[in-house]
Amino acid sequence: MKALVYHGPGHKEWESVPDPTLLAPTDAIVQIDTTTICGTDLHILQGDCPEVKDGTVLGHEGVGTVVEVGAAVGTVRPGDRVIVSCISSCAVCSYCRKGMPSHCLGMGGIGWVLGHLIDGTQAEYVRTPFADTSLHKVPDALTNEQAVMVSDIFPTGFEIGVQYGDIKPGDVVAVVGVGPVGLAAVATAKLYGPSKVIAVGRSQPRIDHALRMGADVGVSTNDPDWVDAVMAQTDGLGVDVVIEAVGVPRTLQDCVRIVRPGGHVANAGVHGKPVELPMESMWIQNLRLTTGLVDATSSRMLIDLMVAGRLQPEQMVTHRFALDDMVKAYEVFSDAPRWDALKVAIHREA
Amino acid sequence: MKALVYHGPGHKEWESVPDPTLLAPTDAIVQIDTTTICGTDLHILQGDCPEVKDGTVLGHEGVGTVVEVGAAVGTVRPGDRVIVSCISSCAVCSYCRKGMPSHCLGMGGIGWVLGHLIDGTQAEYVRTPFADTSLHKVPDALTNEQAVMVSDIFPTGFEIGVQYGDIKPGDVVAVVGVGPVGLAAVATAKLYGPSKVIAVGRSQPRIDHALRMGADVGVSTNDPDWVDAVMAQTDGLGVDVVIEAVGVPRTLQDCVRIVRPGGHVANAGVHGKPVELPMESMWIQNLRLTTGLVDATSSRMLIDLMVAGRLQPEQMVTHRFALDDMVKAYEVFSDAPRWDALKVAIHREA
Amino acid sequence: MKALVYHGPGHKEWESVPDPTLLAPTDAIVQIDTTTICGTDLHILQGDCPEVKDGTVLGHEGVGTVVEVGAAVGTVRPGDRVIVSCISSCAVCSYCRKGMPSHCLGMGGIGWVLGHLIDGTQAEYVRTPFADTSLHKVPDALTNEQAVMVSDIFPTGFEIGVQYGDIKPGDVVAVVGVGPVGLAAVATAKLYGPSKVIAVGRSQPRIDHALRMGADVGVSTNDPDWVDAVMAQTDGLGVDVVIEAVGVPRTLQDCVRIVRPGGHVANAGVHGKPVELPMESMWIQNLRLTTGLVDATSSRMLIDLMVAGRLQPEQMVTHRFALDDMVKAYEVFSDAPRWDALKVAIHREA
Amino acid sequence: MKALVYHGPGHKEWESVPDPTLLAPTDAIVQIDTTTICGTDLHILQGDCPEVKDGTVLGHEGVGTVVEVGAAVGTVRPGDRVIVSCISSCAVCSYCRKGMPSHCLGMGGIGWVLGHLIDGTQAEYVRTPFADTSLHKVPDALTNEQAVMVSDIFPTGFEIGVQYGDIKPGDVVAVVGVGPVGLAAVATAKLYGPSKVIAVGRSQPRIDHALRMGADVGVSTNDPDWVDAVMAQTDGLGVDVVIEAVGVPRTLQDCVRIVRPGGHVANAGVHGKPVELPMESMWIQNLRLTTGLVDATSSRMLIDLMVAGRLQPEQMVTHRFALDDMVKAYEVFSDAPRWDALKVAIHREA
Repeated sequence: MKALVYHGPGHKEWESVPDPTLLAPTDAIVQIDTTTICGTDLHILQGDCPEVKDGTVLGHEGVGTVVEVGAAVGTVRPGDRVIVSCISSCAVCSYCRKGMPSHCLGMGGIGWVLGHLIDGTQAEYVRTPFADTSLHKVPDALTNEQAVMVSDIFPTGFEIGVQYGDIKPGDVVAVVGVGPVGLAAVATAKLYGPSKVIAVGRSQPRIDHALRMGADVGVSTNDPDWVDAVMAQTDGLGVDVVIEAVGVPRTLQDCVRIVRPGGHVANAGVHGKPVELPMESMWIQNLRLTTGLVDATSSRMLIDLMVAGRLQPEQMVTHRFALDDMVKAYEVFSDAPRWDALKVAIHREA
Repeated sequence: MKALVYHGPGHKEWESVPDPTLLAPTDAIVQIDTTTICGTDLHILQGDCPEVKDGTVLGHEGVGTVVEVGAAVGTVRPGDRVIVSCISSCAVCSYCRKGMPSHCLGMGGIGWVLGHLIDGTQAEYVRTPFADTSLHKVPDALTNEQAVMVSDIFPTGFEIGVQYGDIKPGDVVAVVGVGPVGLAAVATAKLYGPSKVIAVGRSQPRIDHALRMGADVGVSTNDPDWVDAVMAQTDGLGVDVVIEAVGVPRTLQDCVRIVRPGGHVANAGVHGKPVELPMESMWIQNLRLTTGLVDATSSRMLIDLMVAGRLQPEQMVTHRFALDDMVKAYEVFSDAPRWDALKVAIHREA
Repeated sequence: MKALVYHGPGHKEWESVPDPTLLAPTDAIVQIDTTTICGTDLHILQGDCPEVKDGTVLGHEGVGTVVEVGAAVGTVRPGDRVIVSCISSCAVCSYCRKGMPSHCLGMGGIGWVLGHLIDGTQAEYVRTPFADTSLHKVPDALTNEQAVMVSDIFPTGFEIGVQYGDIKPGDVVAVVGVGPVGLAAVATAKLYGPSKVIAVGRSQPRIDHALRMGADVGVSTNDPDWVDAVMAQTDGLGVDVVIEAVGVPRTLQDCVRIVRPGGHVANAGVHGKPVELPMESMWIQNLRLTTGLVDATSSRMLIDLMVAGRLQPEQMVTHRFALDDMVKAYEVFSDAPRWDALKVAIHREA
Repeated sequence: MKALVYHGPGHKEWESVPDPTLLAPTDAIVQIDTTTICGTDLHILQGDCPEVKDGTVLGHEGVGTVVEVGAAVGTVRPGDRVIVSCISSCAVCSYCRKGMPSHCLGMGGIGWVLGHLIDGTQAEYVRTPFADTSLHKVPDALTNEQAVMVSDIFPTGFEIGVQYGDIKPGDVVAVVGVGPVGLAAVATAKLYGPSKVIAVGRSQPRIDHALRMGADVGVSTNDPDWVDAVMAQTDGLGVDVVIEAVGVPRTLQDCVRIVRPGGHVANAGVHGKPVELPMESMWIQNLRLTTGLVDATSSRMLIDLMVAGRLQPEQMVTHRFALDDMVKAYEVFSDAPRWDALKVAIHREA
């Protein structure tokens, strides 16, 4: 089959590789019908994830058709249309049992193995471990483009942004960074009844996109007085919850500047270096800073809300490609602001 | 009256000042029978709190006798023996109403005003604002030395360490720093049924004190392999909750080193400078870092547990002084390790 | 002044009574500009509340203008336009401090005193105890008819129905009873992102009203298969949360029939007699049943959401009267289904 | 092999039956080394559980040695010493994934299948479904008699009594009923730092046992003023949390009599008939009533606390029998008060 193979920092190739086969009775083989690219894939290509080995097929998001299942798989059958979750959960270890498969001990202490520690979904086929607890059947009401947003981006925005941020009805919420994760946070923040969601970003087209996805106010950090602009949207003390969705030191520090005493900072960004935090003022502020890899335990619930029409994940897809145009898809996604791109949908049949 | 007056960084004096008088109908005047010194007082003297003005009487902890109350005070009467809470709560503002008087808006956005923004308790008398919600009657069963531990140190260890740390039955907990706040955290951690409390500190006498106050294991950071020693007390992945009770960059960084994925870091230390945190590894660890000034909303409950014999706050008092020996008390407390001192009790009648 | 006075079961009169005066320094006198009638007022008139004494002015909801304040009142001034909360909170007692002023100890162990233990709001003027914590300034953006829904009905539907029911995103929720409390629950349930809200009632006009206020599905209990109709809206196991908003044995029993294992039953109805519950099947179902009088601690937040346009309380008002037509307003409200009435608005100037 | 077989209401036999065999790749066969009898077994024999078929081997508690595992079992091996949990969890269904295997959909919507819907543990061997998530390896530090208390009784007292009761530090807690479940609740209530645990029962020897297991006060319902006696242990308003551990109407009604406004009633008793509750007074009391079958998700944590010496489950065992004396063990347990019996331990090798 063809697959997008990582060959060390800066190098990738859409090339022929052996078809995947079942390795454990809990595995399934899934034909990929729709996949996409994540910011994390770009981090890998920049060399930020040395644990990814040369030769690994990238990708941890996908919707496809089950073609084969191991003897112990009970919930999906060949022919089933499924979402491949970015998290593979053994269901048995202590982390899985307490609802935190992000750190599943079944395959080395992390639930994110696809396109990371084993071959992933940017390919014609993928082997998915622990199929019973890592695949989700797709209701007919959802398109592949909607469904693939459940692999990673919507659960991440919701769990690591909104839920860790502990948004409550009436809260004023800021989302710093309006790429895909930030937009998923904007959209799902509304599930907890905030009085106002403020999208904070640099790119005006992305801020506009956030406004279309449910933000009430947009603030551009190109404005030198942007902190005052955020504060003016509050009672003057700051926002109740701020979600960081960029992953660089300055934006996390910005979050601390606009959050009120007793507020929450939920970091959803992928960071590449240490961040200096002003603990000399933070210690007395009763702040809560959270970080995290998605557990994807909200996937089924998000599917239900999409079916009910409460979420519009398709708003996230700006560009479409055929599987064989994978490299071109990477070009667009790597330079997203230039193309005004958010998520790209890559289809078996374009 | 006599009081301990701050005269700028490095300068303090036990000197004569005017007696306090009622300024608002919600005020009370309390004769101080027992007071103590807090690490924060030393921070003020080092110049770390520029908001403290020359001429301010220091001190935010005390037990005493009510001598006069304003017209609107309904719950205490002259003659009542009371604990003066370090937090003055107006009860009316939005922060007080949501149970967070640490940031009471009644007197400038912070509940800690005594010995900070107004004259404090290291004096013969003190004016206490919002008496109905900032004084607690002392049950006969408690001595003054027990009761004064409710002014600040026990609520701080419990609320900012234990509760923000969200200790659950069975957890393995580490407390980094075994001064008074750390010891209060050790003692009150037991209220949530941890399987093990590890006291981490430098000074062996203080570690021993922690063991007497309920810690199960002591680990000295003088041991170059101390991180391994902590890990060996867990399943190898780290502690569930770690409480920082020192307030310097290295100890907060140490906390991040020993906490497991999904764990909590509760910072109770008072920091004087920024701290660089390894967000490049923390982002994926599902950590929660909290900070805070005490709300003291647990005071009544802690009193009940002391009366019930569940907590032994008197274990914290190592040295006793008369009020007129205030300066000597500061000498001992400022150099606590040398004197093997924890909390000092300073009595009207020694 | 004129007021609606209770004269024992079945008897009330719009009659002249003395103007209220300040009795405590924390009191305020408020001129009533808009009031309304609550189902609880009808219970009192039926004799269900023997603690209400002959001669009491009824009413615990109102919007008005402050005309006088006691010496200790700091947050409102004469001329301020305010919502009178149905709960008077002393702010000082243990219940108030833990956020449960429903059982405020300041006036006898219950926060609902207006129109119950002391004279209420169905009058030209009312004395309101603990003014600083029991009145809420009304933003200009809200009409009196919107604001008066914050006195009781919206906080009750939200706190006792939605919050005690612990609705979570994706939940299927049923509200049994579509009078004012049920409708307030329907409207505010949406603040927690349910996938579906099912309005269960007898009267089709009221069910239709529920659909206009945000319910997704209406089910009439006149249909003998109504339980199946509810179950068909779930995965077959029942609803996640059911809110009881009637207050008779059968409807509470109905709630238990349609809730799933692990589900929540939030009783918001006012009951007049014991209810037999099927504990022989409930014991194993992991159910949670809650009851309660409103705390009204969500009032400020609900105001914010109304100002933000997130809630439309004005949808609840079906009939309008002048103060002098109070008795006529009672006639309509007592026979609400006949008049297709929900809440009546009674204005000083109609 | 020999097993205790149910033959309809009132009939049981210790008789020869075929050895169990693996039926699914996730099964294990366990040789029972220690088992015990539960109050629920007596309910079955009284005919209260018509779903139990004639011919079923009873028993859902046991410690034993794994003798055979299915192909898909990964966490236990033949020879392992294990606790058989009373709850069999498929780990895959929606209930298991949200931490509520009490209602596991894997075998008919209930996690309690052993000795109920399939053959149980009062036998020489038992087949245990879903072995990876339903067996727990026993640390060497625990005896069989300690370990068997983790099969059901300790998780039930802790999860359905203590956790559903939401005990918080400082609470005054009452446990109504001092049989095994009540005693397990008494012992584990201490994990949340209550200020006082009141054991309420009829039998003085059992009350004395509760005092030995951690209760602070005992109150006998033989005293006609027992409600006053409980109230006298509170501030006069009632207990914060009351745990029902009997399962008859009167005791549940008693719980409502002694709980304070805003308090919690956690029902752990197995009921056989409906209960009339005073909703006409409860509706306004802000009460929370919970019910439930154990999830046994706390098992591993309880094991850890037993190893750490924080819990003494062995205090529960009053009588010991050999497997072949099963019928005699039932005689003693069925008439527990007469023999002053709590839990009986039934050993392969007595």
